[in-house]
Amino acid sequence: MSSDRIIQIERDILGKNDRLAADNRARFRADGVLAFNLVSSPGAGKTSLLVRTVSELKDSFPIGVIEGDQQTSNDAERIRATGVPAIQVNTGKGCHLDAAMVGEAYDRLPWLNGGVVFIENVGNLVCPAAFDLGEACKIVVFSTTEGEDKPLKYPDMFAASALMLINKIDLAPVLDFDLARTIEYARRVNPRIEVLTVSARTGEGFLAFYAWLRKRASKAKPAEMTAAE
Amino acid sequence: MSSDRIIQIERDILGKNDRLAADNRARFRADGVLAFNLVSSPGAGKTSLLVRTVSELKDSFPIGVIEGDQQTSNDAERIRATGVPAIQVNTGKGCHLDAAMVGEAYDRLPWLNGGVVFIENVGNLVCPAAFDLGEACKIVVFSTTEGEDKPLKYPDMFAASALMLINKIDLAPVLDFDLARTIEYARRVNPRIEVLTVSARTGEGFLAFYAWLRKRASKAKPAEMTAAE
Repeated sequence: MSSDRIIQIERDILGKNDRLAADNRARFRADGVLAFNLVSSPGAGKTSLLVRTVSELKDSFPIGVIEGDQQTSNDAERIRATGVPAIQVNTGKGCHLDAAMVGEAYDRLPWLNGGVVFIENVGNLVCPAAFDLGEACKIVVFSTTEGEDKPLKYPDMFAASALMLINKIDLAPVLDFDLARTIEYARRVNPRIEVLTVSARTGEGFLAFYAWLRKRASKAKPAEMTAAE
Repeated sequence: MSSDRIIQIERDILGKNDRLAADNRARFRADGVLAFNLVSSPGAGKTSLLVRTVSELKDSFPIGVIEGDQQTSNDAERIRATGVPAIQVNTGKGCHLDAAMVGEAYDRLPWLNGGVVFIENVGNLVCPAAFDLGEACKIVVFSTTEGEDKPLKYPDMFAASALMLINKIDLAPVLDFDLARTIEYARRVNPRIEVLTVSARTGEGFLAFYAWLRKRASKAKPAEMTAAE
C-alpha cells in the first residue's frame, strides 16, 4: 500500500473522530460538564491521582470517570470504591480512546449537570495525542521516575496538553530528578503549558491542582463548580 | 470507513511488515548476529540499561544499537559515548519501529559478525507488541515505579516477550512494590516468560542478565559470543 494511501486513511479516521468529538463537546456544554482527558505513560499514577481527587472533590460537585485500558476493569473498580461512578472501556488491541468510545461511556454515566468528567486515557505517550475526545483540555501526568527528556522525545503529547502534572514528587529526593530541566524541556515544545507538582501518595500539591480545576471551571462557568468555591 | 475495511488494512500493513521482518531475520542469521528488541513504557530505563550493558560487554563481542524515538537523537548519542556504534531512527508521528526501519538502520551499522544488535523500540507498551522486527526475541523492561498491575492491563506486550527485566529494583524499598505479585501477573499472561531483576543505576543483577544473553547466544551459536564465555 502506498504511503499516500495510508495518509489518506489516517485523515479519514481522524476526520470521523473529530466529528464525534465535536458531538461530545456539544453534549458536555449542554450538560454544563467540564471534561478533562488525562494522558501519560503507563504507571505515571493517573489512577492514584484520580482516586485522591474524586475522593476529595466528590461532595463539592458531581463527578464521573471514564477509564480506558487495553484490558481489566481494575481502574474503574478503584474509582467506584470511592463512591464515584466510573465506566471502564477496554480497547483490546487499541492504543488510545477515541471519541466514539467516550460518547458511549458518557451515555452510561449518571447525569453530571454542572460537574466534571475525568477521562483516563490508555497509558501511552504517543497515540492519544492525536485523538480529540471532546474534552476541555488534555492534562499530561508525568512522573519524576520517567526521566527529564521525555517532553523532547514525545513532543506531540506535551504540545497537546494544557497542564503538566508532575507526579511522584515525593520521590524526587531519592532520584536524580531535575525539575527545572523537565519544565524547560516541556516549555520548549509548548511555551504555554502550565505545570504543577503533586504526589498522589502523600497528597502534596493537590490543593493547587483543585484550584487549577476551579479556575478552568470558572472560565467555562458551570454553575455548581463555581458555587462550590 | 467500515471496521472490516480497517481490519483488512491492518492485515495488509502487518503482512508487509512480517515479510520485511523475515528478511531481517535471514540477514541476522547470515551474519551470525543475535538481535534483541527492547520494549517498555517511556522512562522504564531502557537506554540506561543499554549504556551499562554495551559498556561492559563491548570488549567481548561486536555490538551495535538501533535507537527508536519519536524525536531527538539523545539516545544514540548516549550509546555512542560508550564507543559502540548506534543508529537513531526518528519515527515522527509513529508509535513503534517497523521492520523496514530496522533493515535500513542495520545497513548503516558496521558488520557485527557473530555479535549482537540491540534494538531499543519507542517507549510504548501497546503498539510495538504487534510488530516483528526480525529479532531473536523481545525483552520487556518494566520498572518498579510502574505498578504491579501493568502485565494484566497491557497483556499483549508481556505475552510477546521472552524475558521481563524488572529495572529500578534499587527503588523497591522506598516504593510499595510487590515483586511476587508482578511476576505472578506476568506469568498469568505468559507462563513461559523469564524474569530477572536489575538496577541500571547500581549495576545490581547485570551478571545474571549477561548470563541470560549468553545462554540465548549459545542456543543460536554465533561463534564469538560463546567463545567469550
